[in-house]
Amino acid sequence: MPTSNPRQVPPQTVHVPLAERSYDISIGTGNLAQVGKWITSLRSVTHAVLISDTNVAAHYEKPVHQALEAEGIRVTSLVVPAGEPSKSVATAQKLWEAALEDRVDRKSIVVALGGGVIGDLAGFIAATMTRGLDFFQIPTTLLAQVDSSVGGKVGINLPAAKNIVGCFWQPKGVLIDTAVLETLPRREYLSGLAEVVKYGVILDEPFFDYLEANVQPLLDREPAALQKIIARSCELKAQVVAEDERETTGLRAILNYGHTYCHALETVAGYGEFLHGEAVSVGMLCASRLGEKLGVFHAPSTQRQHALLSALSLPVDTPQLDEAAILAAMQRDKKVEHGKLRFIVPLKIGKVELMADIDSEVAMSAWREGHSA
Amino acid sequence: MPTSNPRQVPPQTVHVPLAERSYDISIGTGNLAQVGKWITSLRSVTHAVLISDTNVAAHYEKPVHQALEAEGIRVTSLVVPAGEPSKSVATAQKLWEAALEDRVDRKSIVVALGGGVIGDLAGFIAATMTRGLDFFQIPTTLLAQVDSSVGGKVGINLPAAKNIVGCFWQPKGVLIDTAVLETLPRREYLSGLAEVVKYGVILDEPFFDYLEANVQPLLDREPAALQKIIARSCELKAQVVAEDERETTGLRAILNYGHTYCHALETVAGYGEFLHGEAVSVGMLCASRLGEKLGVFHAPSTQRQHALLSALSLPVDTPQLDEAAILAAMQRDKKVEHGKLRFIVPLKIGKVELMADIDSEVAMSAWREGHSA
Repeated sequence: MPTSNPRQVPPQTVHVPLAERSYDISIGTGNLAQVGKWITSLRSVTHAVLISDTNVAAHYEKPVHQALEAEGIRVTSLVVPAGEPSKSVATAQKLWEAALEDRVDRKSIVVALGGGVIGDLAGFIAATMTRGLDFFQIPTTLLAQVDSSVGGKVGINLPAAKNIVGCFWQPKGVLIDTAVLETLPRREYLSGLAEVVKYGVILDEPFFDYLEANVQPLLDREPAALQKIIARSCELKAQVVAEDERETTGLRAILNYGHTYCHALETVAGYGEFLHGEAVSVGMLCASRLGEKLGVFHAPSTQRQHALLSALSLPVDTPQLDEAAILAAMQRDKKVEHGKLRFIVPLKIGKVELMADIDSEVAMSAWREGHSA
Repeated sequence: MPTSNPRQVPPQTVHVPLAERSYDISIGTGNLAQVGKWITSLRSVTHAVLISDTNVAAHYEKPVHQALEAEGIRVTSLVVPAGEPSKSVATAQKLWEAALEDRVDRKSIVVALGGGVIGDLAGFIAATMTRGLDFFQIPTTLLAQVDSSVGGKVGINLPAAKNIVGCFWQPKGVLIDTAVLETLPRREYLSGLAEVVKYGVILDEPFFDYLEANVQPLLDREPAALQKIIARSCELKAQVVAEDERETTGLRAILNYGHTYCHALETVAGYGEFLHGEAVSVGMLCASRLGEKLGVFHAPSTQRQHALLSALSLPVDTPQLDEAAILAAMQRDKKVEHGKLRFIVPLKIGKVELMADIDSEVAMSAWREGHSA
């Protein structure tokens, strides 16, 4: 749905309905400069703790800082090294102490400016500083925009496990500026598209159709296409999270489509070898082949996903890795109960189901058959 | 209300009404041995992280551990050094890592066995491990039984500020065994009584009357009297917390009666010089004299508090400390807004009010006039 001028797209809002924790995601192009006005339209603020990383700060810390100050907000700007190692107890402690040192109090807010690591880390600071500060997110990667904007999961890692320390802490508002994606490295941008494809497969066939029909605008990062896919992904995730906010009913597990294979791949290939979305791309195709083997999914639907992911320059072939290690990693997955493998399996494009008690040899053959011919 | 045999008191339950976070406080004498059955009556449990300190563990870790194991619960028992320094990021990190090492998962529970430090620390671990574990409290000091049992405040200290990092995290249940108070040092026991007196002054004159009429049973730690004062204190605190769970309406501030003076006294006298309840005792009398000076409270009511606190062997005289330091400490208090002093001031026994914009000289004269003649 390109407009006459694809640079001028009217902004839109996605509502995340969570009773008294409801909030809006404000999506636009070039709206970063309005961040001060946007926050003060949501509540009165005199002090903000702005948390970003070295990569993002280089581009966007200054305009955000100035936009907040222009509204009379005192800003404590804290910049951590870019990368996963900043999601640590040591970094959290530095941030707690720096915020306190600069006179944080119960009326202060926390603003996360960055990708998933910053959202998780800053959200954890917000959840725990003075027993909870209002939290605002400005996600700057496509993955964070379509994933971390909705869900309320915040936290840090311990050396032995990722995301093991944290809280559910919903933001008071999320501002997404699609223009910031222009500075995102191409590989990281494409990785985010894999999660977008995931939403189509698990919940919305017409959205999947739209993605198939708009590969080129997506590769070109056209604002209208970006806004469409971000808004729809957020809406779809919001529907799921609204029904299972604290991951207790099991519904939220459908968001993990492709992720059992993905996590095993990430673990065995070694951190950083595959970007998360790249591993999701490979994992979704494994889960689709698994669906075929279980007799619930049809090969043409696997082929549709393969074609779309491939057109989006995402990896589609299973890499050659130690199969015993892959299986062991899958058996340690959070979805495993009493040693039985469980997978989110597609039934058709737009519908998936959690299937338990999957035979490990069947699961591994779906992996193996993804090797390039 | 002593029964015919004061060692045999029927157990009782106080309900804390917090919508879907409601829970019960189970109060009895000698009910510690039933902790396993009590927890499994509330939910099914296969793994518990039991957190206590070196002092408490010496007396009660073994019976609690065994009572849990008797119900088929695997127990990870973690003991930290007794004392406030354990409420640190470093200790929290050790506990997170130890729990993870012993295979904590989302279905595990955390059991706090100890006083206020253990309740706050273990509650923070529960609030943050795997984004929130069910939390059960077994408070072992009178202060923790009448204070930390209700309120949901959990957290740790940073070097520059106490309780600055934490969450609101309600327990799923609290078990109070009045028999554990037999091993509590006398001074610490008496300190807890000061908070009990506080509940009478702020909310319940008949309860205050009861305390006046039962000084000797209280000093003797008679089970019937203990159960009465613990249950009533928990009920009163529950009423307040139910109306202001996250300390947003200001109602919860009435629990801080006497605490502005108390915190200043603790800060200036130096940590450990006064036990918390001892400083509360002195602080309540300062706040009462302040009420007299403001023309809202009558001297005979101050005298009633003085007589009761004194009969309970609690300190009643303001210590000789640097007045400038006391004032400065009060001005840093959380209840200060824009530099104006605010106090919880009694109107009569059973009713208090938050009064803002108090002149610092008036506040200090209420302090000064408490020096012993």
